[in-house]
Amino acid sequence: MALKIFVVGGTFDKEYNLITGELYFEETHVNEMLKLARSTVRVDIRTLMMVDSTTITDEDREIILHNCKKTSEDRILITHGTDTMVKTATLLAEHIKNKTIVLTGAMIPYTFGSSDGLFNLGSALAFVQVLAPGVHIAMNGRVFSWDNVQKNRKTGFFEEIEKEL
Amino acid sequence: MALKIFVVGGTFDKEYNLITGELYFEETHVNEMLKLARSTVRVDIRTLMMVDSTTITDEDREIILHNCKKTSEDRILITHGTDTMVKTATLLAEHIKNKTIVLTGAMIPYTFGSSDGLFNLGSALAFVQVLAPGVHIAMNGRVFSWDNVQKNRKTGFFEEIEKEL
Amino acid sequence: MALKIFVVGGTFDKEYNLITGELYFEETHVNEMLKLARSTVRVDIRTLMMVDSTTITDEDREIILHNCKKTSEDRILITHGTDTMVKTATLLAEHIKNKTIVLTGAMIPYTFGSSDGLFNLGSALAFVQVLAPGVHIAMNGRVFSWDNVQKNRKTGFFEEIEKEL
Amino acid sequence: MALKIFVVGGTFDKEYNLITGELYFEETHVNEMLKLARSTVRVDIRTLMMVDSTTITDEDREIILHNCKKTSEDRILITHGTDTMVKTATLLAEHIKNKTIVLTGAMIPYTFGSSDGLFNLGSALAFVQVLAPGVHIAMNGRVFSWDNVQKNRKTGFFEEIEKEL
Repeated sequence: MALKIFVVGGTFDKEYNLITGELYFEETHVNEMLKLARSTVRVDIRTLMMVDSTTITDEDREIILHNCKKTSEDRILITHGTDTMVKTATLLAEHIKNKTIVLTGAMIPYTFGSSDGLFNLGSALAFVQVLAPGVHIAMNGRVFSWDNVQKNRKTGFFEEIEKEL
Repeated sequence: MALKIFVVGGTFDKEYNLITGELYFEETHVNEMLKLARSTVRVDIRTLMMVDSTTITDEDREIILHNCKKTSEDRILITHGTDTMVKTATLLAEHIKNKTIVLTGAMIPYTFGSSDGLFNLGSALAFVQVLAPGVHIAMNGRVFSWDNVQKNRKTGFFEEIEKEL
Repeated sequence: MALKIFVVGGTFDKEYNLITGELYFEETHVNEMLKLARSTVRVDIRTLMMVDSTTITDEDREIILHNCKKTSEDRILITHGTDTMVKTATLLAEHIKNKTIVLTGAMIPYTFGSSDGLFNLGSALAFVQVLAPGVHIAMNGRVFSWDNVQKNRKTGFFEEIEKEL
Repeated sequence: MALKIFVVGGTFDKEYNLITGELYFEETHVNEMLKLARSTVRVDIRTLMMVDSTTITDEDREIILHNCKKTSEDRILITHGTDTMVKTATLLAEHIKNKTIVLTGAMIPYTFGSSDGLFNLGSALAFVQVLAPGVHIAMNGRVFSWDNVQKNRKTGFFEEIEKEL
């Protein structure tokens, strides 16, 4: 099975600058995480960019879309900041119909000894291997369709959009 | 969706006894792991036993089978030692046809700061939510059918059984 | 031996707010750290304040001085932010001559799985038990006298002040 | 200040073999620990042996003694298994009078995410820099003279030998 991982950044991959006390990006930790997790899934990893979810531009999203389109793999996992994950998923869903795409991320940087990044990577990798074509978001152990999910800004959890009757 | 987690023990849940230098069991860490992972999947967790995979008896396996049968949930995740995981999966597969059962475990105790336990829990929880009825093993980021998997004793990785032509 | 620990905050005790991505204070981790470290040193711990080193005021420093004076213990360990640690040490040294006071801190929060906080706590606790009366700073495994130490803002390491000839 | 670290093994440096479930030795972690701890103490580290404290022989102890004698540094830190730490300290005390020697160790391997190893290293490094010549044991945040300390086998804590009146 051909499987691609595109790294886009997000809290998932942030580092702590001990001089300034600020968060920043160096290299992605996805390879290291998969190794420590003893994953034997064959994946091809590409870092498209290392950006904060709140600063992703429309141009950035076009780059993600372009790469998802042109890659030969039909199963794609994207690690992405959580704040605009749904927006990127929406663009991908509008233009790509024949691939299984799963976006995931984390609320706590992996380098802070967080647990949600590694757990989310495990669940996203599972979902992307078995789900039918479509664009999905894997967060908090669950999978959501791109058109029925939102991040609750108060709790930081992803949830379905409540439908009005 | 109704989802059950049965805890059977295994390396996953082992502790280090700092007086004797030996590994042993206390309580399961599954609840704590799901909380740290920020999982919002609704699960009902029951500890059936806390045993080393190499010491599981046929009676123990009957207890696991009995509980899988009688529980009302039709999606069941089992944390189990890796050495006899396939043997337990085989018994379950012979007697249960209408439920989705996923067994998982770890090569390194969660309390040792391992990465494979949390990652495997994430992937197993994903697989059990979406796979069709049947008995599966989720290890190393992959999912295997109970009748085509073995643990490689030298490497500790799970792999398909090589079929002779 | 009577030993007091005064908690003043600093990076040592910072937490990560996963909703805002900012660092903040909750309770101190000193008790928990000493327990995990299996310390059997008898200490009495008091949290004076939980403040960022850069925001400590002269009034705050007076509170620290007042508490160091009035406490019955003659050996005092202070966990303090690194940026103004020397300034606080200077005030204490000017007013207290008959007690052994050791200030320490960390460059990475303990909750980020840092190593310097726990290591510094171990070395500071050692120094405060055996050094003669005076005010000292314990950082980077070393001990410095209050009047011959500065934090190098570029590297984050503490070092002696270079004396001109 | 000239400071030597001799590595002798012990729980401090043990690894977990995920295939056999047993503990074993690879390389020491002392260098890595000092780096993560941001220590700037100048040390020269030598691994004399990597052995379990219970299997140390009289010949092994002679090697430790020989190296402590011949090294030019007069301040020596030894990482050693806890079970026979006092026995080695006794031999060293009988033959070396003019050097400051501090032995330390851990109850939980550093690779298990333990806290006592790093904390003990911090306190031992502090004690060895400031104590007068003699042989000392640094465990549980405290320092003991070689001739008034024992490991409590039930609790794993080091304590003074109770003197009879």
